[in-house]
Amino acid sequence: MNLTDATHDPKLRSWVESANAADTDFPIQNLPYGRFRRAKTDEPWRIGVAIGDQILDLKLAAEQCPWGDGVPELLRPLSDGDLNTFMALGLDARKRLREALSTALAEGSDQGPFLELCLLPQDQAQMALPCAIGDYTDFYTGIHHATAVGKLFRPDNPLLPNYKWVPIGYHGRVSSIGVSGQQVKRPMGQTAPAAGDTTPAFGPCKRLDYELELGILVGTGNELGSPKTMEQAETDWFGLVLLNDWSARDIQAWEYQPLGPFLSKNFATTISPWVVTREALLPYRVPFAHPSGEPQPLPYLNAALDAAAGAMDITLEVWLQTAQMGAPQKLMQSNFRDSWWTVAQLLTHHTAGGCNLQPGDLLGSGTQSGPAPGQGGSLLELTNGGKAPLTLSTGETRTFLQDGDTVILRAVCSGPGKARIGLGEARGTIVG
Amino acid sequence: MNLTDATHDPKLRSWVESANAADTDFPIQNLPYGRFRRAKTDEPWRIGVAIGDQILDLKLAAEQCPWGDGVPELLRPLSDGDLNTFMALGLDARKRLREALSTALAEGSDQGPFLELCLLPQDQAQMALPCAIGDYTDFYTGIHHATAVGKLFRPDNPLLPNYKWVPIGYHGRVSSIGVSGQQVKRPMGQTAPAAGDTTPAFGPCKRLDYELELGILVGTGNELGSPKTMEQAETDWFGLVLLNDWSARDIQAWEYQPLGPFLSKNFATTISPWVVTREALLPYRVPFAHPSGEPQPLPYLNAALDAAAGAMDITLEVWLQTAQMGAPQKLMQSNFRDSWWTVAQLLTHHTAGGCNLQPGDLLGSGTQSGPAPGQGGSLLELTNGGKAPLTLSTGETRTFLQDGDTVILRAVCSGPGKARIGLGEARGTIVG
Repeated sequence: MNLTDATHDPKLRSWVESANAADTDFPIQNLPYGRFRRAKTDEPWRIGVAIGDQILDLKLAAEQCPWGDGVPELLRPLSDGDLNTFMALGLDARKRLREALSTALAEGSDQGPFLELCLLPQDQAQMALPCAIGDYTDFYTGIHHATAVGKLFRPDNPLLPNYKWVPIGYHGRVSSIGVSGQQVKRPMGQTAPAAGDTTPAFGPCKRLDYELELGILVGTGNELGSPKTMEQAETDWFGLVLLNDWSARDIQAWEYQPLGPFLSKNFATTISPWVVTREALLPYRVPFAHPSGEPQPLPYLNAALDAAAGAMDITLEVWLQTAQMGAPQKLMQSNFRDSWWTVAQLLTHHTAGGCNLQPGDLLGSGTQSGPAPGQGGSLLELTNGGKAPLTLSTGETRTFLQDGDTVILRAVCSGPGKARIGLGEARGTIVG
Repeated sequence: MNLTDATHDPKLRSWVESANAADTDFPIQNLPYGRFRRAKTDEPWRIGVAIGDQILDLKLAAEQCPWGDGVPELLRPLSDGDLNTFMALGLDARKRLREALSTALAEGSDQGPFLELCLLPQDQAQMALPCAIGDYTDFYTGIHHATAVGKLFRPDNPLLPNYKWVPIGYHGRVSSIGVSGQQVKRPMGQTAPAAGDTTPAFGPCKRLDYELELGILVGTGNELGSPKTMEQAETDWFGLVLLNDWSARDIQAWEYQPLGPFLSKNFATTISPWVVTREALLPYRVPFAHPSGEPQPLPYLNAALDAAAGAMDITLEVWLQTAQMGAPQKLMQSNFRDSWWTVAQLLTHHTAGGCNLQPGDLLGSGTQSGPAPGQGGSLLELTNGGKAPLTLSTGETRTFLQDGDTVILRAVCSGPGKARIGLGEARGTIVG
């Protein structure tokens, strides 16, 4: 199975010089979409494509550059700042525009002189959520996370019997999703009665945490009552962002039974601004299988379809910058290939009972922890439930987040003979 | 505390004759808002007010009738089919328009001759969801339901320790919310392995159920990070609808731990089309208190504010019509005054951690069961978990819903010396 085409060629270079740097997240092989405007203005939001340290403004590009047949129609909703309409168009549209942009941004392109006038440096832009998000679902595909957290909440019963069979998920809050740079106010909330007491406490969260996740943005939706097949699901997702599922552990522990997390999660969720498309990630698809001896996916989650290349090799990282630090410090690293379910399985399961997905819907992957103890995707895991504080480079210690702490999620794909594909970052700061 | 004004006067009559019938849900004292268009057309949706068996078309009313100062401005978003903008305006705007509509629709009004031309019979209209719903949260305020269901899911531990302290809630799915008349396709899903088996089953839901709830629509929202006080919450909700939280019990039992219900709920939710405003319900406010000896609400849920009139006396009913029945049969009746939390407490709790509510957001009350065994708000309760089938008037039996069954939720407020205020109905039919 050859998943890649000329747009993935690692030798391809852009006339945008910064896109050719070895360490850029946004080489010409990436071409992620975002919604931006010039900083410190209240101009209408526009859709752009990140290229090196620049943004190609698709409104200007549509107006000022000649394009091949059919491309202006694809650019039209994007010119209006509307990513959702484009997302709904599906795989062929995504591929056609990817090819057109790749050609136009490639070294030696005839379109270069027109498009040079359509660039804005990223450091002069303000970013918004990339699309309108109708519904947000958070999954729980990180089996190492589920096991580690399960041990803390239910020492006798860490991984529930359904975990290996059901892609566990729950609905999240859309209104409080923000883009990288979000200032997250420490939530107030109820916590369990102290030992010997019968009345719960109410006050500022004392166990404030992050969760390292990927966010999947839905491209093509489905009608209510018409589930997606795995084949459809495989191409119906649009792309990935980073997602920080901020969590108030003390509030969560008291409220979450029997209906799941609520206020412990809905005070904020932060995503990265650039949507890296499914197509940009194709070179990093890897085989998927549940280990032999483990439960195999039921037929509707058709594992055979995913066997060759259902998983993705994406390195994920959490960085922390306290108010005292001059630069952020890396806390951990994991890989999305350890996810217990594939993206196609998540979409398929979500619709299996008839639920309709819509373009722009957001699915969180769940916390992506690695198998080793130092690979926890949350402080809850890295500090063993707050019992083993981390000592930072400054000599400070942390069990949970303090006011002024900035959490930075990063993700990158790289490997021999392949272009580096980065997801940028999702950054958020705790304020008291 | 006098909550009522001239618009609540039970002696008030309308020149719309059907609004004066003793059994109408929509007398001149009600004036609920809905979104409609003429049946079998694809005209743009408009906002109207139900009056008797008619709809007052607010677009025509704005254009064709003289109004007092300030009223045309209030009607403008409604003329555009946009209830949300009006919802955001808050209590004063709601009261002013209520007074203006009450005056205009009253017997002897000078505006009658103009407004007669702005009526459409309800049976010639098609209804839509009344507003754009950004987020949907489902609470769990029915303590008799929580206890009865808890017994079935956790016989040794029916009511968890947090229940009486925390207004338990979780996020629901917006995309699958439909309006009365919804055809609900029986969901497929995973269910627990049969006894002696290790592999879960996948197939059509065998324990399909309804849940009798009220839906609260948010009027004025709040900024992220800025919780509402109880005083704000009391006036910041816009109105009520009926809400059927369709539930697949077998799927729910297998999937719901540890993160709550997901596919067992998100295949459909049905609400009634007419939003009965907070102001229309004021004559039915009644005292609120947790029984003495029970946990009292924490200070942020200020029970003192609710003591005099925080609860609402609303009679709720479930009716069932099987394919064999000529007319629906009443299954049970309960009352919203038995809710463990008030509407103001739900809004306050929802925002206590900083979560932002937005105009048009929907909050389900949770299933409203009464204290007696025959007052269960779901079949799960009425049939003791499917072990005690109901025998219907036709001689048919039911444990859970069969294809072709229509479930009808109704709610009405009535009492001596008060105008009857109905919520209409939320009707849905199971299709295979």
